[in-house]
Amino acid sequence: MARRHDAPKDKQPKAPLYDTSVATPNHGERSRTLVSSVDTATLCSVARKPEGHPYGSFVTYALDGPTPVFLISHLAEHTRNLLVDCRCSLLVAEPGEGNPLARGRVTLVGRCEQLSGAEMESAREAYLKAHPSAEFYIDFRDFSLWGLRVESARYIGGFGNMSWIDEEGWSTGEPDPLVAVRDRIVEHMNEDHEDAMAAMCRAFSKANEFSSVKMTAVDRYGFEMSVELPDGPRPIRLAFDNAAGNANEARVELVRLTKRARTQLEAAD
Amino acid sequence: MARRHDAPKDKQPKAPLYDTSVATPNHGERSRTLVSSVDTATLCSVARKPEGHPYGSFVTYALDGPTPVFLISHLAEHTRNLLVDCRCSLLVAEPGEGNPLARGRVTLVGRCEQLSGAEMESAREAYLKAHPSAEFYIDFRDFSLWGLRVESARYIGGFGNMSWIDEEGWSTGEPDPLVAVRDRIVEHMNEDHEDAMAAMCRAFSKANEFSSVKMTAVDRYGFEMSVELPDGPRPIRLAFDNAAGNANEARVELVRLTKRARTQLEAAD
Repeated sequence: MARRHDAPKDKQPKAPLYDTSVATPNHGERSRTLVSSVDTATLCSVARKPEGHPYGSFVTYALDGPTPVFLISHLAEHTRNLLVDCRCSLLVAEPGEGNPLARGRVTLVGRCEQLSGAEMESAREAYLKAHPSAEFYIDFRDFSLWGLRVESARYIGGFGNMSWIDEEGWSTGEPDPLVAVRDRIVEHMNEDHEDAMAAMCRAFSKANEFSSVKMTAVDRYGFEMSVELPDGPRPIRLAFDNAAGNANEARVELVRLTKRARTQLEAAD
Repeated sequence: MARRHDAPKDKQPKAPLYDTSVATPNHGERSRTLVSSVDTATLCSVARKPEGHPYGSFVTYALDGPTPVFLISHLAEHTRNLLVDCRCSLLVAEPGEGNPLARGRVTLVGRCEQLSGAEMESAREAYLKAHPSAEFYIDFRDFSLWGLRVESARYIGGFGNMSWIDEEGWSTGEPDPLVAVRDRIVEHMNEDHEDAMAAMCRAFSKANEFSSVKMTAVDRYGFEMSVELPDGPRPIRLAFDNAAGNANEARVELVRLTKRARTQLEAAD
């Protein structure tokens, strides 16, 4: 449970318009999804000078299973730091528009090690797949592959939506299968199916007097919308009947829910 | 002087096509320009648990003179860390497209302090100007304004272009006056004036056999282009006669250099 900001009475959060027990990705899954869909981050290491000072540097990374891997030069500050003290964290922020504090971010906390043997080969493949232009310098003698052994993770999904995740939560969290198609689904729904979303909101949430509705997110378990009320936008989340593993399965679930919503609204008329 | 990567002979950097003693913003100026044109970053603090571990978190900031200022909650990990250990750094990365390692980034190293009195009032104004939506919660009792006292800065402008900057270099570096108009200038030159840029490259650089040229950057001291040669793109930088303080002055300088280039090319014919 997130602690609440110490807000004056007139700025307290409003009661949700939907059943918040709805199926939702857990924070381990959300973290893995976010980290797998981005490829740049800040690596925080312990500086040699001033000694012990936290030092942030920009890095590119790839995920090899649950392990973020880096191709870094022994000339770089962060590599020289890690050679003395392997403790580090990696901050990955979700790109996007609008209020930056409403977007997701993850801090992976652990230790960084230079990789060798089969782990190095696997990291090399993952890194080059994510960053093909590194082929040019991956064999320079000052570069090597490192892996971050994640010990815990801090997930922040936006305002008041955050938690600590342990090693198991991180390593077993599966990236969402819709990650590559979610933007396309959201765009399609907003362009062509506002009427369907309005029906689902009326049938399955407490939102009635809204002037417009748009989809803001979709994942294997369901989708999120923003309805425009007289006093501002409010979120709605609805669950699919069955988890969707690809774009077609998500479409089937959306069509099913729309039909059920319309049937229910007609019956209530 | 940047140390060189340990590259095989066939991948050594090529000799530049322009006079590299050309007027160029120094790294203090480039750092201030970059940090003043972005408003989100990673704050690296010292974790309470695991104790001493470097911890990266996402923050929004504003610059109040040379001081980055933050509006942060006592509920947040970074604030709780700073209350125990004020040592921190702030990593600001330049947004953009293309190879992320070719873009600029700055690490500001120093100590973070909660602000009070006139400093707090000044920080409040700067922060709200950059982040107007914070008006909603700036008076919540768990939020306070903090400032990062910069002691040194690490600037990385892209591949092999980096240095440490001391406190004076940071605090006296002026943000480039063209920062708000530079994208528009670059776009205009690339849409309408490739012929002018080609003339300047032929007259004032060693680039001749290029198939195209585009502007990539402009600052008060001059501008940068990329010429397409048979073996790939190469950079050219040319200086203005007089530093340009606004878009009109930059236009005057570009017109003057174009005329001089054409006169010189005609004379050589």
